[in-house]
Amino acid sequence: MTSELIRTTIEGISPLDGEAMQAARQRQARLTKPAGSLGELEELSVRMAGLAASCPPPVLAPAALAIFAADHGVHAQEVTPWPQAVTTQMVANFLAGGAAVNAFARQAGVGVTIVDVGVLSDLDPADGLILAKVRNGTADMSEEPAMSREEAVAAVETGIGVAGRLIDEGARILLTGDMGIANTTASAALISVFTGRDAGMVTGYGTGIDAATHLRKIEVIKRALALHEPSAEDPIGALSTVGGLEHAALAGFVLGAAARRVPVILDGVTAVAAALAAQALAPLSREAMIAGHRSVEPGATVALAKLDLAPLLEFGMRLGEGTGAVLAYPVVASAVRVLHEMATFDSAGVTEK
Amino acid sequence: MTSELIRTTIEGISPLDGEAMQAARQRQARLTKPAGSLGELEELSVRMAGLAASCPPPVLAPAALAIFAADHGVHAQEVTPWPQAVTTQMVANFLAGGAAVNAFARQAGVGVTIVDVGVLSDLDPADGLILAKVRNGTADMSEEPAMSREEAVAAVETGIGVAGRLIDEGARILLTGDMGIANTTASAALISVFTGRDAGMVTGYGTGIDAATHLRKIEVIKRALALHEPSAEDPIGALSTVGGLEHAALAGFVLGAAARRVPVILDGVTAVAAALAAQALAPLSREAMIAGHRSVEPGATVALAKLDLAPLLEFGMRLGEGTGAVLAYPVVASAVRVLHEMATFDSAGVTEK
Repeated sequence: MTSELIRTTIEGISPLDGEAMQAARQRQARLTKPAGSLGELEELSVRMAGLAASCPPPVLAPAALAIFAADHGVHAQEVTPWPQAVTTQMVANFLAGGAAVNAFARQAGVGVTIVDVGVLSDLDPADGLILAKVRNGTADMSEEPAMSREEAVAAVETGIGVAGRLIDEGARILLTGDMGIANTTASAALISVFTGRDAGMVTGYGTGIDAATHLRKIEVIKRALALHEPSAEDPIGALSTVGGLEHAALAGFVLGAAARRVPVILDGVTAVAAALAAQALAPLSREAMIAGHRSVEPGATVALAKLDLAPLLEFGMRLGEGTGAVLAYPVVASAVRVLHEMATFDSAGVTEK
Repeated sequence: MTSELIRTTIEGISPLDGEAMQAARQRQARLTKPAGSLGELEELSVRMAGLAASCPPPVLAPAALAIFAADHGVHAQEVTPWPQAVTTQMVANFLAGGAAVNAFARQAGVGVTIVDVGVLSDLDPADGLILAKVRNGTADMSEEPAMSREEAVAAVETGIGVAGRLIDEGARILLTGDMGIANTTASAALISVFTGRDAGMVTGYGTGIDAATHLRKIEVIKRALALHEPSAEDPIGALSTVGGLEHAALAGFVLGAAARRVPVILDGVTAVAAALAAQALAPLSREAMIAGHRSVEPGATVALAKLDLAPLLEFGMRLGEGTGAVLAYPVVASAVRVLHEMATFDSAGVTEK
């Protein structure tokens, strides 16, 4: 049904380590600050200790963002006003350092890797670009499965492999990025499958479409869902029929991070749609996920609720690329630094109340 | 009534530059992203252009945090369980790099300066510590004015001076920090004065007090307000009767930043209380302010509404020190980087919709 790699990856995902979490809570209580005064950051540091099964957990640097790029056959249904060529053009823009996510990554000190998992055109090799194309764009989900099961499995495996490679290269935290014109259509379809919510409730305006296009987008998603009847019980089936190659790869990326006990910061709606597939494949993978921000896409909020994740940031963003994940990274790294770098009341000679 | 330095500083504060803001809006529309997709960060970048009166505005680095430390005579009323000596002990902790704000500042790349504007004990000189004590702690506001008008003016001038010194040393953005056991009592009193809200509505649990202490804290504030009848029309009078030396200095710090057209990120309840005094002295100073986060102190939310500022972050924090401002800094710097570093559709060869 899936593959040996996917199976062993899923089996390698363990629960949070209760002992390390307890040690982190005790350490938080000894640090030179009023108990609980760092709010959500304290609980986040405790979860990071549980994920790493050590207190303190590793310092979360270096940080590595992987931007999975792919094209979507459903573009033919006019679900977006952007030409499909923009996917390829934006890959070039990422490689040249001129996109929003590049600017944010330079500020945050995050390394950027682009992964061609399914761009329509063939790309030339370049520094920072992993060529791992599974196929040249998906098929139109409203007429046929977006890809075969085998292709979906291959894309998931690609994501697992990229996570492993970045961690082997030293990354201590991974961040999700995505690029693919029309990918909010596949995201909404996947969120509908995994949450059971109607397509109309989870489909937004993406990069900015008019009301007529929005209605058409919803109808296209409904047609695809009626045609394939994907089920949350069969995550690979859902990814292959109504997903995207970057969604499948991102699901694998999350699984790969979780299996290595490395946290992964999710970006926007494409990331959380893929994370739902990862959660369906391996419920424990959720423990490795951090929601970077709340995208304005309505599906993002629905998916975050299903994942039981509260987003760190909320700026009304809807760009993708990993921008929200990168903005959240310094917050997560700061939360863990507290466990490493802060003095205790004893060590600093500070009197307690 | 105030002083020549305060008067000229206030007179030096200009409105946002509409031409630069218009140029920033036009530039945002040409960058390789869907229009508006960076949400609040786009409007923030536009305001930064207006503040600097140039597009793009300066890159916001280096960043300088000033932690204004002082003690509070109202501590005698048992408004907090923390010993007053903790103010001095925490200054030593900041200088040794062991506090939460130090850990956050290392992550964000923010320089930290401590300013003794009114710590009770006399401090030894140290690297990173500015000795600018106006008096050794305030008097008990519930029995007499916290300080004289002359002392309040001197503390405001200290804040103006520190802002100018940090900017002269290269800082392109300032961040507010504060340390002072019992300073949330003075913060609540000031917020009540400047917003007209009842003390009970703006007084919180500070670093963590019990219900009996909370009630006592509210009564102490009410007694002080009834005794001095401070008015929003006389900001120096309000600072001197029910404020703290760090509040007065922070108000000056904000004015000094605004006069130099440099943005200042506000931290929590102490910062926003001081910012209300700055706003009362110079309404245009509000344009230089960025709300770093929403403290859980109820007075913070009331003050932010009066300042008409939406906080960037909300993590349920209540630590002070500048922690919330430092966490927000990378977001603000990222917003401005967009105007400097992103490619345009033309320059990157990306097709528009």
